[in-house]
Amino acid sequence: MVRLKNVTWLLVTAAVAWEAGKPLVMEEVEVAPPQKHEVRIKVHFTSLCHTDVCFWEAKGQTPLFPRIFGHEAGGVVESVGEGVTDLQSGDHVLTIFTGECGNCRHCHSEESNMCDLLRINTDRGGMIHDGESRFSTNGKPIHHFLGTSTFSEFTVVHSGQVAKINPEAPLDKVCIVSCGLSTGLGATLNVAKPKRGQSVAIFGLGAVGLAAAEGARISGAGRIIGVDLNPNRFEEAKKFGVTEFVNPREHDKPVQQVIIEMTDGGVDRSVECTGSVQAMIQAFECVHEGWGVAVLVGVPRQDDAFRTHPMNFLNERTLKGSFFGNYKPKTDIPGVVEKYMNKELDLDKFITHAVPFSKINEAFDYMSKGECIRCVIDMGA
Amino acid sequence: MVRLKNVTWLLVTAAVAWEAGKPLVMEEVEVAPPQKHEVRIKVHFTSLCHTDVCFWEAKGQTPLFPRIFGHEAGGVVESVGEGVTDLQSGDHVLTIFTGECGNCRHCHSEESNMCDLLRINTDRGGMIHDGESRFSTNGKPIHHFLGTSTFSEFTVVHSGQVAKINPEAPLDKVCIVSCGLSTGLGATLNVAKPKRGQSVAIFGLGAVGLAAAEGARISGAGRIIGVDLNPNRFEEAKKFGVTEFVNPREHDKPVQQVIIEMTDGGVDRSVECTGSVQAMIQAFECVHEGWGVAVLVGVPRQDDAFRTHPMNFLNERTLKGSFFGNYKPKTDIPGVVEKYMNKELDLDKFITHAVPFSKINEAFDYMSKGECIRCVIDMGA
Repeated sequence: MVRLKNVTWLLVTAAVAWEAGKPLVMEEVEVAPPQKHEVRIKVHFTSLCHTDVCFWEAKGQTPLFPRIFGHEAGGVVESVGEGVTDLQSGDHVLTIFTGECGNCRHCHSEESNMCDLLRINTDRGGMIHDGESRFSTNGKPIHHFLGTSTFSEFTVVHSGQVAKINPEAPLDKVCIVSCGLSTGLGATLNVAKPKRGQSVAIFGLGAVGLAAAEGARISGAGRIIGVDLNPNRFEEAKKFGVTEFVNPREHDKPVQQVIIEMTDGGVDRSVECTGSVQAMIQAFECVHEGWGVAVLVGVPRQDDAFRTHPMNFLNERTLKGSFFGNYKPKTDIPGVVEKYMNKELDLDKFITHAVPFSKINEAFDYMSKGECIRCVIDMGA
Repeated sequence: MVRLKNVTWLLVTAAVAWEAGKPLVMEEVEVAPPQKHEVRIKVHFTSLCHTDVCFWEAKGQTPLFPRIFGHEAGGVVESVGEGVTDLQSGDHVLTIFTGECGNCRHCHSEESNMCDLLRINTDRGGMIHDGESRFSTNGKPIHHFLGTSTFSEFTVVHSGQVAKINPEAPLDKVCIVSCGLSTGLGATLNVAKPKRGQSVAIFGLGAVGLAAAEGARISGAGRIIGVDLNPNRFEEAKKFGVTEFVNPREHDKPVQQVIIEMTDGGVDRSVECTGSVQAMIQAFECVHEGWGVAVLVGVPRQDDAFRTHPMNFLNERTLKGSFFGNYKPKTDIPGVVEKYMNKELDLDKFITHAVPFSKINEAFDYMSKGECIRCVIDMGA
């Protein structure tokens, strides 16, 4: 078979962010063919993540507009560019905001998923191959976001950011595995690693924290203590296996002290999912001496400082950070989908809202108001 | 066989510290019989550790005099008290400054060695059973130190602080396994766990740091980078497998930066053995993102604060503290002796000096001047 070069441009609908914080506009957009090591994907379902909202609001970030946001998505490969050997037209895939080139020190390491080539880059607006965008409208290029840009009927992604999954997996559910779900789940399963019956404290009961709680539930944790400043989240969190709640505002002593008293010395594991440096310190100091492990997931501000007495370490506590749940995107994410397929992992409870693509701005409203865990956007509706 | 109650008092020679910083005085001391869960041990060889010197100088510590110091020792059980079932007269043993009761949460945990009952207690001057001392001279009680007090021909120790070892092991060598050697060795072998070929930075090239380097050598580390402010230690450290040296005073940039540049991004593992909080921060920040593990061993001051940017954790670095190399005293220390017996572990190079018991004050001189790694005191000479 002679394989002809793919030179088809596609004219599709995409939700374009023209300005920071302004509603996305449905536009006809040209999607160029995939270049070297790239694949073009028909997006079936995409979910909205808080990171999309942050960069759309562009408070504190480098503004890069016009841009097509979106990174949590399930779709089907439409065509592949030169040099792509592990994916082909028709493959069911998830797009991932960080990649796995397979050739760098991190990809060769069993311990790291922080690929040198394809690690998350929020400032990049073009493709790695040539720095150019594959999107344009009326000849004007539109920036990519995280190399995924899934708020478009079709998108072009580096093959290292594409996880090939079980074709029987329902894309309207497993699309959420792309980012937040795996980030929290993996922080517990791959890094905190609670043993059956152990206690786990989760700081922050947003999507990532609830996914960390789901990891604790799957691990058979005996107690799952949820910590959040918003008591409205407690009822919802019970569905995720959270057994007890601590609202720091309801106590006049430090929350680590509250948890130490609740647990006769501290929890066995903790997972910090807020990004507040104060919560990071609390999450570390509330784990039990001798064996306690605290895992940091939430992203801090640039000027934060983590500060604690070094004896807290000397007493055999461990503090680790986690990125994307320590999953390697291509190698490990198909296995997370399998956990859902064999009913070990429950995804459905994370999906609180659904909208057709034409109403994508409603998803931004739900997320901005803190009303949803995940809103799934149906690209075909 | 009917076992008669042991009611023999022994009159022996001990080196008594009557006052802080004053030379020890050889005294005739009465040693009471071992009480419940205690054993009486004939000390054959004991080595001097920096901790003995610190508490003898009593700068900043609660002064407790008169006291019999000494905790690193090899000897033979002379008699056992009520309830001791795992040791008997004639057993070859090491005394350990921290214990393993076998019944508490820490002893039941696979991960901890920080026994609730017998964890190191530097302020206690009597035995746990009744708070009393087993030593007296002319009717005046003499305080114990760390529950071991091995600068005496015979001593009484809680059975949970006694490790039964291979009777063929030479006590003049393996006595050093009791404390500093295991602390450094275990920090590398049990906590940092470098893989074959990886790079390891050791902060502080005293006895504990050199033992950490020995652990790195045994692990097959590819590069062992020694960091110390005293360049006189570099030549000696080569015997311990240290391949490169960094003297922070010879660089005008932070030592973590120096090490990151030497290693193209950071070392795979680091072990901090000085107790300086600045060195702790350096040891953490010099490990590689993605997989780096830093282990804290050195004991900080009370008012120290460990401070770093939380992104250093988020980039998948791990920081752990270690106590006594994470060895359980009774369960694991016999295995360290076996490592010496099968020539995997080299102890001889740590023993730079030896003195007869009558000249024990010379050992204090060597240690105070930083001239020795370990000075072994022959209690029979």
